[in-house]
Amino acid sequence: MMKTIIIHATVLTVNNTNEVIYDGAIAFENGVLTYVGPTPEELDTYGEVIDAQGRIVMPGLVNTHGHTGMSLLRGYADDLPLQEWLETKMWPLEAQFTEEHVRWGTSLSIVEMLKTGTTTFVDMYDHMDIVAELTVASGMRARLCRGVIGLCPPEEQTRKLEEASAFAAKWNGAANGRVMTMMAPHGAYTCPPDYIERIVARAHELDLPVHIHMSETEWEVQQNVNDYGTRPVEHLEKLGVFNRPTLVAHAVHLTDEELDTLAKYDVKVSHNPISNLKLGSGIARVPDMMERGICVSLGTDSSASNNNLDLFEEMKMVALLHKGHRQNPVLVPATEALRMATIYGAEAVFMEDRIGSLEVGKQADFIILDSGRVFFHPSHDPISHVVYAASGRDVKDVFVQGVQLVKDGRCLTMDEEAVIENANRMFARLEKK
Amino acid sequence: MMKTIIIHATVLTVNNTNEVIYDGAIAFENGVLTYVGPTPEELDTYGEVIDAQGRIVMPGLVNTHGHTGMSLLRGYADDLPLQEWLETKMWPLEAQFTEEHVRWGTSLSIVEMLKTGTTTFVDMYDHMDIVAELTVASGMRARLCRGVIGLCPPEEQTRKLEEASAFAAKWNGAANGRVMTMMAPHGAYTCPPDYIERIVARAHELDLPVHIHMSETEWEVQQNVNDYGTRPVEHLEKLGVFNRPTLVAHAVHLTDEELDTLAKYDVKVSHNPISNLKLGSGIARVPDMMERGICVSLGTDSSASNNNLDLFEEMKMVALLHKGHRQNPVLVPATEALRMATIYGAEAVFMEDRIGSLEVGKQADFIILDSGRVFFHPSHDPISHVVYAASGRDVKDVFVQGVQLVKDGRCLTMDEEAVIENANRMFARLEKK
Repeated sequence: MMKTIIIHATVLTVNNTNEVIYDGAIAFENGVLTYVGPTPEELDTYGEVIDAQGRIVMPGLVNTHGHTGMSLLRGYADDLPLQEWLETKMWPLEAQFTEEHVRWGTSLSIVEMLKTGTTTFVDMYDHMDIVAELTVASGMRARLCRGVIGLCPPEEQTRKLEEASAFAAKWNGAANGRVMTMMAPHGAYTCPPDYIERIVARAHELDLPVHIHMSETEWEVQQNVNDYGTRPVEHLEKLGVFNRPTLVAHAVHLTDEELDTLAKYDVKVSHNPISNLKLGSGIARVPDMMERGICVSLGTDSSASNNNLDLFEEMKMVALLHKGHRQNPVLVPATEALRMATIYGAEAVFMEDRIGSLEVGKQADFIILDSGRVFFHPSHDPISHVVYAASGRDVKDVFVQGVQLVKDGRCLTMDEEAVIENANRMFARLEKK
Repeated sequence: MMKTIIIHATVLTVNNTNEVIYDGAIAFENGVLTYVGPTPEELDTYGEVIDAQGRIVMPGLVNTHGHTGMSLLRGYADDLPLQEWLETKMWPLEAQFTEEHVRWGTSLSIVEMLKTGTTTFVDMYDHMDIVAELTVASGMRARLCRGVIGLCPPEEQTRKLEEASAFAAKWNGAANGRVMTMMAPHGAYTCPPDYIERIVARAHELDLPVHIHMSETEWEVQQNVNDYGTRPVEHLEKLGVFNRPTLVAHAVHLTDEELDTLAKYDVKVSHNPISNLKLGSGIARVPDMMERGICVSLGTDSSASNNNLDLFEEMKMVALLHKGHRQNPVLVPATEALRMATIYGAEAVFMEDRIGSLEVGKQADFIILDSGRVFFHPSHDPISHVVYAASGRDVKDVFVQGVQLVKDGRCLTMDEEAVIENANRMFARLEKK
C-alpha cells in the first residue's frame, strides 16, 4: 500500500494532552499512522497527498452500545411507557425478524454511522453472522456480540450459548482485526444467575470481554432486589461477571457503593444519554463516575430509542445534560466529551492500543469535517466547535485502517439507495397491530 | 407574482389536527398560501411547478429567543461558572462591539438560521438598526427589540429608552410586515422597577409586546427576593408587565403559583433547553406549563451558550429532556415538540394569524427537507423523524413570504463566504485577556 498524507488540516489528536495541531498533517501506510505533526515541507515520499485546508481531522468516533438491526423500527413507536413500548411494539415486530430484516436494518445503521463519523461500533443483537459480514464488507470496525436472553427452557439456553460462543470464536480478529467479539448476557433481569455464570465461564475460555445491559431503569433495579435480594451491581459482582473485562450499557441507577464497585473492577460504562432520556429511564451519574476514574464512553442505543445513530449528538448531550441537571456549568467539559466519544470509547471496547486517538503506530481510523461551514466560525476553538456546534452531517470523509469509506459525504462501500429501498421493503412486510 | 405549486411532497401542515398529507401539495401567490392538499391533477394554472417527490414540506421554524450578534463569540468560552463566563469573557468583549461586530455576528447567525430551517427569529440586542437591515436584506422574518439594561444613570436610561422606542416605532411592520418589533427591558435584575414601568408604558403607547429574560437562574430569583421581597413573576406582575402581551425567555425556576400567574395572563414562554443546560441554569418545568395551557415555544439563545442556532436540536431536546428528567416517556410527545418549534413559536411572537402552520391564507413561510437521507427511513412516521432523527443540516430549501432564500442548501440572499471571512476578521480584532 502506498504512503498517504493529509496536509494543512486542523488535527485534533485526542492524545494525552488533547493536542490540537494547526496546519497539521497525518500520514499512514498499510493502515497504520506513520506521522502526526505539522505539515512537513518535504512531501515527495508520499504516493498520495490530500489537501485538507480549512478542515478538521480527528479520530473516528466509537459507538459503544447499540442494536443495529433495530434501525428498521426507527420512528415506529415513540412517546410510550417503556413496558407498553416493548411489549406491544418492539417485541412483536422483532419476533418476526429474519436474517433479511437484520441485513437491511444493520445496513441502514452502517450507512448512517459511517456518514456521521462513527468508525467503530458495538452491536449486541441476533443473526450476528449477518452483522459481521456487513461490517467486513462495509470496511467498518466493530466489537460484536450475540445478545442472549435466558428466559427460556434449558435446551434453548444451551443452544443460544453455543451459538453465541461459536459466533464469538469464529469472528474474533477477522478482517485484519477489524472485527472483534464479546460474550453478552442480555441483562440480569433477562438471564437467570446460573446462565450468566455459564456465559461468563465461556468468556473466560474464549478470553473475551463481557457486554451486558445494567441498571437502565429503576424498575429493573427493584426487580433485581425482589428476585435476588441485591441490587444489580452486587448481583453481577457475585456472579463473577466483573472478573472479566466488562462493558456495561446504561448504568443509570447506581448508589455510591455501586459506583465504587465499578471503579474497583475497572468496569467500562457505555453512557446512552439520548436513549435514557427518550425512554424516560433517567439521568446517569456521569460526573460521579468521572470523579472515580470510571471509563465513561458513549452509545446511541438503537435507532428505535434515539432515533438516529449520530454520535455527535451524544457528544453534545453528555456535555450539556449533566451541567443542567446538577446546575453546574463546569461539569463534563468539551475535552472530556470528545474523549468519551473517541479514546474512552476505544478503552471501553478494549482497543485503546489501536484506535481512539491520532498517534503514530495506531490504526488510521479517522474522519474529516467540513469546518468551512458556518457552524465552525469564528474558528477560535475547534474542540468546542466539534462538541457544541457540529453535527455528524458535517463529516465529509471517513477512513478506517487507511481505507477511505466515505468520500465527500458519499458512502463508497455501501449502496445507500439500495439500502434505503430494501429497509423500507422489509419494514413494510412486518405485521403491525 | 406568478402562482407556484410544490407537488408530490409529504406535507406536515401543523394545523389543528397535525395533519400529514402524503403526495401533498402547497401553492402560493403573492407570498400567501392559496392551496394545501393532495397533489392536484390540474397544474396548468401554475406558472412554476416544483416537484418535491420524497421530500418533507413543513412550516419554517420560529426561534423565539436569541442575541444574533453574539455568534461572533461562538466557542470563545465554555464550561465556566456563569458569573465568570459573563464577567471575564462575554461582557469585556461585548463592550468592544461596534456596529460592524453586530453586522457580521448577526450575518453569521442569519446564514446559520436560514440554512437550518428557521424562517422567523426573535432578537434582543444592541445596534438593532443593523439587525433590522440585515433581516430585510436576507428575506427573513423577525420580531426585533433593543434590549435595555437599566443599571446606569437616569439620563442614560432615558437615552436607551428613547433609542429602543425609536427603533421599535420605525421598524414595526417594515418589509411588507416581515419585521415586527417589541419593547425589551433586559430583566428584573438589570432594570430598576421604575425603569421597567417606563418601558412598559412605552409599549402601551406603541401598542407593542414586551420581551424580557425571567427566572433563568436560582441566583437571579434569590436576588429578586433579596432586592424586592418577591420572586420575579410577582414582581413583574406588580409592575404591570403582564398587562401587555409578553414573551418571557427561560422561565426555568418557577413555583406552582408563578406558573398559575403566567397562565392567567397568557404570558408566552421561550424555552431555551440547550442554553439552560450549558450554562448550568437548570431544567424548566415544561410539562407543568403544558398542563396549564401555557404557550411554550423554543429558543436557541445565543451561539455563545448553545453553540449553534439549529432549532431542530431544540426540538429534539425538548422532546427528550423532560421525559428523562421526570422519568416519564409520554411527556412532550413529538407532535407537541413540532408545534413548539412552529405554531406555538408563532403564537409566542404574536404572529399566529400569519405563520406557524401551512394553511390557506397564511404566509408562504416553509422549508423543504431532504428526507431521502438515511435518517428518514423506514419512512413510517414523518413527524417522528423530523423531531427525533432530523438535523437542520437536512434542510434543502427555504421560502419566506413565497420568496426562495435557500436553494439546495445554498443561501441565495447572503454571501456565506464573505460572512464567514468578515466574522473571523471582526472576532480577531477583539481584545482578549
